[in-house]
Amino acid sequence: MLIRLGYDITFDCPGSAPIIALLKVHSSRVQDLRKPDVLTIEPATSTEYYFDSFGNYCCRFLAPAGSIRLSNSTVIYDTGKPDPVSPWAREIPVHELPTNVLGYLLNSRYCEVDRMSNIAVELFGGIAPGWNRVQAVCDWVHQKVTFGYQYANAMKTALDVFTHRVGVCRDFQHLAVTICRALNIPARYATGYLGDIGVPASSAPMDFSAWFEVYLEDRWWTFDARNNQSRIGRVLMAVGRDASDVALTTSFGTTNLQQFTVVTEELLAHEAAHS
Amino acid sequence: MLIRLGYDITFDCPGSAPIIALLKVHSSRVQDLRKPDVLTIEPATSTEYYFDSFGNYCCRFLAPAGSIRLSNSTVIYDTGKPDPVSPWAREIPVHELPTNVLGYLLNSRYCEVDRMSNIAVELFGGIAPGWNRVQAVCDWVHQKVTFGYQYANAMKTALDVFTHRVGVCRDFQHLAVTICRALNIPARYATGYLGDIGVPASSAPMDFSAWFEVYLEDRWWTFDARNNQSRIGRVLMAVGRDASDVALTTSFGTTNLQQFTVVTEELLAHEAAHS
Amino acid sequence: MLIRLGYDITFDCPGSAPIIALLKVHSSRVQDLRKPDVLTIEPATSTEYYFDSFGNYCCRFLAPAGSIRLSNSTVIYDTGKPDPVSPWAREIPVHELPTNVLGYLLNSRYCEVDRMSNIAVELFGGIAPGWNRVQAVCDWVHQKVTFGYQYANAMKTALDVFTHRVGVCRDFQHLAVTICRALNIPARYATGYLGDIGVPASSAPMDFSAWFEVYLEDRWWTFDARNNQSRIGRVLMAVGRDASDVALTTSFGTTNLQQFTVVTEELLAHEAAHS
Amino acid sequence: MLIRLGYDITFDCPGSAPIIALLKVHSSRVQDLRKPDVLTIEPATSTEYYFDSFGNYCCRFLAPAGSIRLSNSTVIYDTGKPDPVSPWAREIPVHELPTNVLGYLLNSRYCEVDRMSNIAVELFGGIAPGWNRVQAVCDWVHQKVTFGYQYANAMKTALDVFTHRVGVCRDFQHLAVTICRALNIPARYATGYLGDIGVPASSAPMDFSAWFEVYLEDRWWTFDARNNQSRIGRVLMAVGRDASDVALTTSFGTTNLQQFTVVTEELLAHEAAHS
Repeated sequence: MLIRLGYDITFDCPGSAPIIALLKVHSSRVQDLRKPDVLTIEPATSTEYYFDSFGNYCCRFLAPAGSIRLSNSTVIYDTGKPDPVSPWAREIPVHELPTNVLGYLLNSRYCEVDRMSNIAVELFGGIAPGWNRVQAVCDWVHQKVTFGYQYANAMKTALDVFTHRVGVCRDFQHLAVTICRALNIPARYATGYLGDIGVPASSAPMDFSAWFEVYLEDRWWTFDARNNQSRIGRVLMAVGRDASDVALTTSFGTTNLQQFTVVTEELLAHEAAHS
Repeated sequence: MLIRLGYDITFDCPGSAPIIALLKVHSSRVQDLRKPDVLTIEPATSTEYYFDSFGNYCCRFLAPAGSIRLSNSTVIYDTGKPDPVSPWAREIPVHELPTNVLGYLLNSRYCEVDRMSNIAVELFGGIAPGWNRVQAVCDWVHQKVTFGYQYANAMKTALDVFTHRVGVCRDFQHLAVTICRALNIPARYATGYLGDIGVPASSAPMDFSAWFEVYLEDRWWTFDARNNQSRIGRVLMAVGRDASDVALTTSFGTTNLQQFTVVTEELLAHEAAHS
Repeated sequence: MLIRLGYDITFDCPGSAPIIALLKVHSSRVQDLRKPDVLTIEPATSTEYYFDSFGNYCCRFLAPAGSIRLSNSTVIYDTGKPDPVSPWAREIPVHELPTNVLGYLLNSRYCEVDRMSNIAVELFGGIAPGWNRVQAVCDWVHQKVTFGYQYANAMKTALDVFTHRVGVCRDFQHLAVTICRALNIPARYATGYLGDIGVPASSAPMDFSAWFEVYLEDRWWTFDARNNQSRIGRVLMAVGRDASDVALTTSFGTTNLQQFTVVTEELLAHEAAHS
Repeated sequence: MLIRLGYDITFDCPGSAPIIALLKVHSSRVQDLRKPDVLTIEPATSTEYYFDSFGNYCCRFLAPAGSIRLSNSTVIYDTGKPDPVSPWAREIPVHELPTNVLGYLLNSRYCEVDRMSNIAVELFGGIAPGWNRVQAVCDWVHQKVTFGYQYANAMKTALDVFTHRVGVCRDFQHLAVTICRALNIPARYATGYLGDIGVPASSAPMDFSAWFEVYLEDRWWTFDARNNQSRIGRVLMAVGRDASDVALTTSFGTTNLQQFTVVTEELLAHEAAHS
């Protein structure tokens, strides 16, 4: 399956503002790209690319005062298979985990592992470790939290979600990530493209999406407490401890969002031929 | 100057518990060691050493049920000069910072940059950028916050310190770090040895200490909102976003502290001859 | 001037739910009513009226399962004069305040006086006590906080408003109330009718409004950190420590708001003749 | 049984400071007093007595700069019976509660009913209403929270206690009160004298104590999530929504506690004869 990916984002900047953008397909999927994955910036601006400590491919630039447009259109190959499900995947004891995943057991801004620790153990400590326990966390979060765009609040933490029980996509993932970490399961926040392939199309405009990954057995696996179902066509862009690490754009100055569209949809055969 | 460093820590573990220890002198000071810096664990336990994503040298092991003792005694050379002061060191615009320091501009568990941003700009936005602004932050925190061991609270955040105005060493640094980040100055939390060299000896038992570092001009510089004076003989052990990243020991299970002593004192000439 | 007041509110209740409604004109304005102020409940429901500890006239009833409609339409006389402004009104020392206003110096759910105390003193401690200091608080809150319905969050406290700097009407008042209390000025939250008399009509649908009162000299005075101007035609319904005390309806069970309209507008002469 | 009650408290005030003291035996116990209950203030200071909106007998005065001593010594008759236990006492539906207890269902500063509501229902919603459910709340809090004076933190809320699981007396009661309110059971915070009568004497110095009351059947009943046992010799001083309402002294200015002793002990027969 081929998937067309892209975005078109315009900011208005009252003054020049440094911006860090995580708007590239993640290095783990680069080999699947069928067209170049080029972040176009208008007006043309000097950019610097680098990998952050989480392995995300970041672009840094100084947005000049005025309007700035970030856009991209590319095509990626996808197996067309839903997120893998591996009920036999085990939780790994902390002292046997690869050392490079240990940081995903710790606190972060929106994931207060310390404050949620007793709660997590009371709710899920009695469930047998492994894939099914992580799934139980997702089921619980999915069932208990009500989705609504009006509940978006950039400063909302996992504990806030636990008490308020309302939120947007990122809030579901933050709560699930925090519970997993409190159970000593490495968990990280993920963002990327996620279209409607295989599910009823949403009436909401397409957007980037958030999900999360947990380390079980010998690798990271995809979970999604918001949708709580295996989905086709996720394209990872960035991972980190929480939304603070993987904001698609982080501005160090005032930037007013003027326009924002995201495209992620299956490329039909005849389109693919001409794309 | 030679400084004797060491610690002697005993935990009682009701069951086996994985522990990550950041109890080694930081790699940036390894060339100054005059004796091996050996973490001794009793009973002898299999250990694994690795560098975390912040560059800290970590030791991981599985503490068995029962009593476990972590100890060390070493000697390090120190110039005997106080923390450098460079009033001419400039703040670097975000788009010109080295990319590997950008992560120290972001939120972390105890440093809610997002919540403190307006406050920081109101208090310090009018001060000329550079070393003196960071010093002004330290002065403010040092003056406004009252130190007291009874105020220790492992879940206290920078905003809590800002509102309560009481705390222990780490709280002072968390508040200063958060304000610096909110001003777009990279700042990181640091822990290590700090004795009484050159200052009146404290009546409190020696302990590890926390300070913080900010990136100005072309390097990281030491600041200390708790003591707010240049000190002699700091020996860095670990750096990170906040205390959550650089806990000297992080236990994934119950561990009860039984005993804790730290030594960090100037080694006099005749001692050095025999040490 | 005559003002027509009224509301029409429908809830859907999955099961029966006790409700407390503060939907009557406050006792201090009863003598101004020109028509009866009758809360009509459909279906007819047994009600009990009482005064709460703040002096609000409350109506308690058990909403049956199904749809319940609360409506009212009345007329009140108003002087047509804007909120009084008394720059000479003094702050009264705590030990000389009437004892029945002392409770309005204390903490409440959304007004964390303890957490805001140092902040308030730093910002406003240097301003001469009296009316102008309260006005300075209003000016500051009005200028610093951005209004937006999307920022509505029933659990937002004054400290949250202070850090986020966004909110709806109640948030502005909570922050101002908290700062006043921290300065030892009794302040209470007020709700009631407030139309557009004398100001450009808003495009937003009419709603109940919130403002606050402070005790200066020898009485309570009206302030409004949201609008921050003297307004004509406020009709007080309830006062309390914060929004938690004076919710227009408090439900002890699930009640889903189906419909909500409020009317508060000047009654023109020819209408008045026939009303 | 006769109980000797008293206290001796000294504050040092850098400047004059208004103080409100709730240091009298509650009106519900006045008929049991066998000696006058006189708050002595040295130096002699003009005082004003009044009842607050919760029915507490308050004393207001302006402490002059310098040292101020508050002391009292009295004797009260007590039945010597432990707190009554009435397992048959029913929870009363909100619409049938006396209207003057409804305020004790609402949020307050340290009792965030809104944030704890879902949690309370999940933990205790399945338990049959009535005395035993309140007891289950006490048992849970008593078991889950660890007592320690080092955990005292005047700004700690019920949610903080729920997440941290550590605290002092008031923290236990705040959490239990909040859970009860979230279950629609009126609950209020209580302070007073509580000695060691009938239990092993504590090594801690005597202090005032906190407990809480819930409204069941037709009256308020005493519960105590800290001690979680029926005790002999409680002497109520004040009730309110939470500790903020019933601080034994509330100072509106700086007051440094210099000395603090409380006496509450059974008066033996020969002492009583001469007292």
